[in-house]
Amino acid sequence: MFVRNFPRNAPPLQRQLLPPVGLRPRSSFLLASSSSFSASTHSATTISRPIISSCCLTTTTARHAIQSYAARALRPPALARSTRSSSTSSRATTGKFGSARLPLAALAAAVLLSAVLAARSGHVHAESSKSEATVLPTYTRAEVATHTTPETGIWVTCGSGVYDITNFVEIHPGGSRILQAAGRSIDPFWAVFAIHQSPETRQLLETYRIGHLAPARTPEEKAANAAADARDKEALQGLFANDPKRDPRLVTLAACPCNAETPPAELTASITPTPVFFVRNHLPVPAVDVETYRLRVDGPTFPQEVELSLADLRALPKHTVTVTLQCAGNRRKDMHEVKATKGLQWTAGGISTATWSGALLTDVLRAAHPGFDLDNQGSADDDDDDENNNNNIAHVHFRGVEGYGASIPFHKAASPAGEVLVAYEMNGEPLPPDHGAPLRAVVPGHVAARSVKWLESVVLSDEESESHWQRRDYKGFCPSTEMPTEEDYDSATSIQELPINSAVLSPRPDSTVEAGPDGKLAVLGYAVSGGGRAVLRVDVSADGGRSWVAADLKPAAPRARPGRQWAWTHFEARVPVAAAAAAAAARKDGQVVEVVCKAVDEAYNSQPERVEGIWNMRGVLSNAWHRVKVTVTQPGAAEEKPEEGGLVERIGR
Amino acid sequence: MFVRNFPRNAPPLQRQLLPPVGLRPRSSFLLASSSSFSASTHSATTISRPIISSCCLTTTTARHAIQSYAARALRPPALARSTRSSSTSSRATTGKFGSARLPLAALAAAVLLSAVLAARSGHVHAESSKSEATVLPTYTRAEVATHTTPETGIWVTCGSGVYDITNFVEIHPGGSRILQAAGRSIDPFWAVFAIHQSPETRQLLETYRIGHLAPARTPEEKAANAAADARDKEALQGLFANDPKRDPRLVTLAACPCNAETPPAELTASITPTPVFFVRNHLPVPAVDVETYRLRVDGPTFPQEVELSLADLRALPKHTVTVTLQCAGNRRKDMHEVKATKGLQWTAGGISTATWSGALLTDVLRAAHPGFDLDNQGSADDDDDDENNNNNIAHVHFRGVEGYGASIPFHKAASPAGEVLVAYEMNGEPLPPDHGAPLRAVVPGHVAARSVKWLESVVLSDEESESHWQRRDYKGFCPSTEMPTEEDYDSATSIQELPINSAVLSPRPDSTVEAGPDGKLAVLGYAVSGGGRAVLRVDVSADGGRSWVAADLKPAAPRARPGRQWAWTHFEARVPVAAAAAAAAARKDGQVVEVVCKAVDEAYNSQPERVEGIWNMRGVLSNAWHRVKVTVTQPGAAEEKPEEGGLVERIGR
Repeated sequence: MFVRNFPRNAPPLQRQLLPPVGLRPRSSFLLASSSSFSASTHSATTISRPIISSCCLTTTTARHAIQSYAARALRPPALARSTRSSSTSSRATTGKFGSARLPLAALAAAVLLSAVLAARSGHVHAESSKSEATVLPTYTRAEVATHTTPETGIWVTCGSGVYDITNFVEIHPGGSRILQAAGRSIDPFWAVFAIHQSPETRQLLETYRIGHLAPARTPEEKAANAAADARDKEALQGLFANDPKRDPRLVTLAACPCNAETPPAELTASITPTPVFFVRNHLPVPAVDVETYRLRVDGPTFPQEVELSLADLRALPKHTVTVTLQCAGNRRKDMHEVKATKGLQWTAGGISTATWSGALLTDVLRAAHPGFDLDNQGSADDDDDDENNNNNIAHVHFRGVEGYGASIPFHKAASPAGEVLVAYEMNGEPLPPDHGAPLRAVVPGHVAARSVKWLESVVLSDEESESHWQRRDYKGFCPSTEMPTEEDYDSATSIQELPINSAVLSPRPDSTVEAGPDGKLAVLGYAVSGGGRAVLRVDVSADGGRSWVAADLKPAAPRARPGRQWAWTHFEARVPVAAAAAAAAARKDGQVVEVVCKAVDEAYNSQPERVEGIWNMRGVLSNAWHRVKVTVTQPGAAEEKPEEGGLVERIGR
Repeated sequence: MFVRNFPRNAPPLQRQLLPPVGLRPRSSFLLASSSSFSASTHSATTISRPIISSCCLTTTTARHAIQSYAARALRPPALARSTRSSSTSSRATTGKFGSARLPLAALAAAVLLSAVLAARSGHVHAESSKSEATVLPTYTRAEVATHTTPETGIWVTCGSGVYDITNFVEIHPGGSRILQAAGRSIDPFWAVFAIHQSPETRQLLETYRIGHLAPARTPEEKAANAAADARDKEALQGLFANDPKRDPRLVTLAACPCNAETPPAELTASITPTPVFFVRNHLPVPAVDVETYRLRVDGPTFPQEVELSLADLRALPKHTVTVTLQCAGNRRKDMHEVKATKGLQWTAGGISTATWSGALLTDVLRAAHPGFDLDNQGSADDDDDDENNNNNIAHVHFRGVEGYGASIPFHKAASPAGEVLVAYEMNGEPLPPDHGAPLRAVVPGHVAARSVKWLESVVLSDEESESHWQRRDYKGFCPSTEMPTEEDYDSATSIQELPINSAVLSPRPDSTVEAGPDGKLAVLGYAVSGGGRAVLRVDVSADGGRSWVAADLKPAAPRARPGRQWAWTHFEARVPVAAAAAAAAARKDGQVVEVVCKAVDEAYNSQPERVEGIWNMRGVLSNAWHRVKVTVTQPGAAEEKPEEGGLVERIGR
């Protein structure tokens, strides 16, 4: 039997359970017994069979939209998992943890769907076809602004549409923060929370449509709308009230949420100074009260959920490790220039290195559940029904206070050699707000997207995190997949370890540089691989890749133990450039030469030569040979370049 | 400070100790105290200071030759390591295991060099310049044939030279097997034991020259030489007397020692049938007496060397794992066709998969030394002088009965999740002679060259194995390194885990194939990565890589635990080919299209598009996109191809 591109680490059982994920109920539903489902929900009291029947024509569409939206959106791990109570009871019936959750999930799905349909039944509208929309009433923005509470109804606008989302607020996967758009346009929020930018989400919203905005015709109406726009903008900025003031040297790609590169000159340091460590926030920086802060730790074999204070975590052995974090989209611009991608145009600065300190995740798990056997991962063939058998634990979910979520494989988390940290210090100081204060995960050797900041919970699970960023982002595809479908995302594997990569830091692109008296050019850069694999060679060329020089290497953590080279390696080479420059001049190419670097890791994996074979629409995993075009002059002909000299000096120390 | 291309896992201490490896004494020297060195050697009694002084002009040359030769040759792990007694005494002085071995090694080197010089002093000859050679006497082959014992002197010929190697036999790194050439030409042996084919070895031999062969002039002399040739050939074949009769389906690249590929039709099975499992022997198959066979296990912190019988090993828990073994030179032919390489021209059949059973190496180590703490690898900064501290253990040496040797990193060997086996079964049967009977190492996820057959010893060490195959072979280089120097080899990293690779098995190269009624072509093949990383995608193209189809995947060990996908994955895709065939026809290219495959592993490492960027002189690590040119006909136009159908049927089951 062939399984098309299926992630290897999802056993058949979990695969069967995957489809209805979007319809699993929230924790309030889960904790109720099956028989009390309808009474336990706010809106379910309005459900009656005739209403559901009358809506059967749109049921499929609505179900699909909700499934897709919920799957794309952020969901706390508690939602993604059966709780102990439900799993225990289902295990009693079926003898297999999790296998009885299918009917439970299906039932919950029916309830959730009913709630949506009930909400819809209060309004005379249907799918968003133009012909139907024209019979809906019109409202002014001032009228919409008066609907901000459950009592008045909670309305929002989107484009020219008006929507009553009163009954959706309860089931919004992102929680109550949707209320920040109450009485306003939801457009600016969706621009920030880009997760909503999908046809499915739009389709779901249309099921709540109650009318459309009246066009502004008079000067007064136009002035009122401008004032409303200003209020929207202000409300939006309010979301980022906790975002810190940032170092002006950061190269900002997007301000809200903050996405900013480390500047090239700072990338040459083995340890990146904290103020210029790259920032990749998916949502606003949250406010966390250190005094009341607790880390929630849970798992299916845990006797109970455990909450650990910062003091509890600091009481565990302190472990320090030097780790490079790299954005999956680092060097996206290089990929984009060959064929358009979707995402911020990161150059080679979506990467930084720090020394992180905190508790080992293995120690945290043992502290939360002293009887938990990290080594007992059973075997895939083991049908042992023992409560303490970890057979079905395959992933560890991290959730951030601000709503971000991700997961890593359990075998990485459970290995002390994996050195996964629950970190409270960065470069010897408490974590700053941009980097997860007061606590974050640091997953060495994995893409930075798994090192969840403002860490709120650690939950063991048989399935991957169902967050948008685990299931509908940070995956690679066949280069002929121009626009991945839901099915493509389902069958693709989440990025965990990153492939070998490297980049030239000096010379800078399009600069004019001077060859040395020996006809050689100094080239500096970094190289890094995933999974703790050391960089064992970097080849550098100044003729576009026809001839190569093996560079000198300077690992940031030279004393790291074998198999645990979590930090980048800087390289330096002096590359013959005179001949290439002369050839360029002869071609009337203005002595423009192409400097190229490519690295090899401990498993002798190498970088692809061109972008074409690895291209993907999201522009992640951009690790083709790094190419920098420069103009070369003879010694003395170029102007003084103190910055270049500074780089050489710096990297050489 | 930059370290040029230095292997990360060799701490500075070991690096300092590396240069004199070739001159470290044999165990008989090592066990003697420093003061008794001269008395403990056979030839050292003849040494006097004047002789050494008179030879000073050639000392440097001879030392270099011996160093190089010994470094290239096979050396038992005991030679590569300080023994317990010497390391303990040196530790008492310096407080650091191994750090005091430098003066000891240097002293031993002087003794060894003296032995060589003393041997030379008995003959009137010098370096092999023609002018000097002419004053040496001539001998017939019959005369040479009478010198086969220490009493008569042990003579060999090489080309037209005659050499007295009596005193070299004692220090021959390959041991007494050199006596098989006594009284004969050494040329055919060197052709088999290709390790000797270096300028350094030839240079060393010349220091033993005593004359040259008299040319055969008379019919009688010519007949005598022909008879001698026949005897040489017979002697050589005698070396391979234990080689088994092999399955005729194997594609033999070299007979002695055997190097044979698995035939393409057999590569489509998840588990390769044992008779057609590829064979890559470096030396003749040895005769091993199962009754007296013992595995020797030792390490610097072991109280004593331990010998384990097969019964001892079978008494340990039996562990079974499905592992693909791949030769480092697999697909060398693809690299060679772009630019010449040195080595047998393996196509894509230097790879096979079996289910191996035996004891986990971790269990063997614990059985040999119950107090041995596998987890105690200390930290690189730890200067703890505790006898039981494993700080300095970084490698595990495997040595074969026949003389082959290799090592793997200790962190791989010490991890139960690494699943390194001391295996006695292959596909449920006792190991056959070609695959290491009665015992071999199986190192999942690593190049096959580390899975040492006919396993004789397992020895822990602070250094890599000093065998030729660890230090002077199985390494990759910058593509501009046309011919690696000794220094290049010293600074390069031994291949352990292999990079992602894949190959098309069907259609076969240069075949004529028929597109299906849907205009598509069925493409089958395998993909595999190192380090237990699963293959997560294989892209297949029928237009040379312009458009791609993601293939269906069939892992050979689908239930392997995460991070332990040691076996290959087969793939199958139906690829649109009609347009490409039409385009080829329009180009008057006879409907020849290029079928290409490329795989992606769990760390999203991908294969390089072209050979040029990964080329190396030895043709190892050949993992560029695999390309197969075929002629495509329309349905019904091609002749019947039962073999193709058979493959499809087979891989689909």
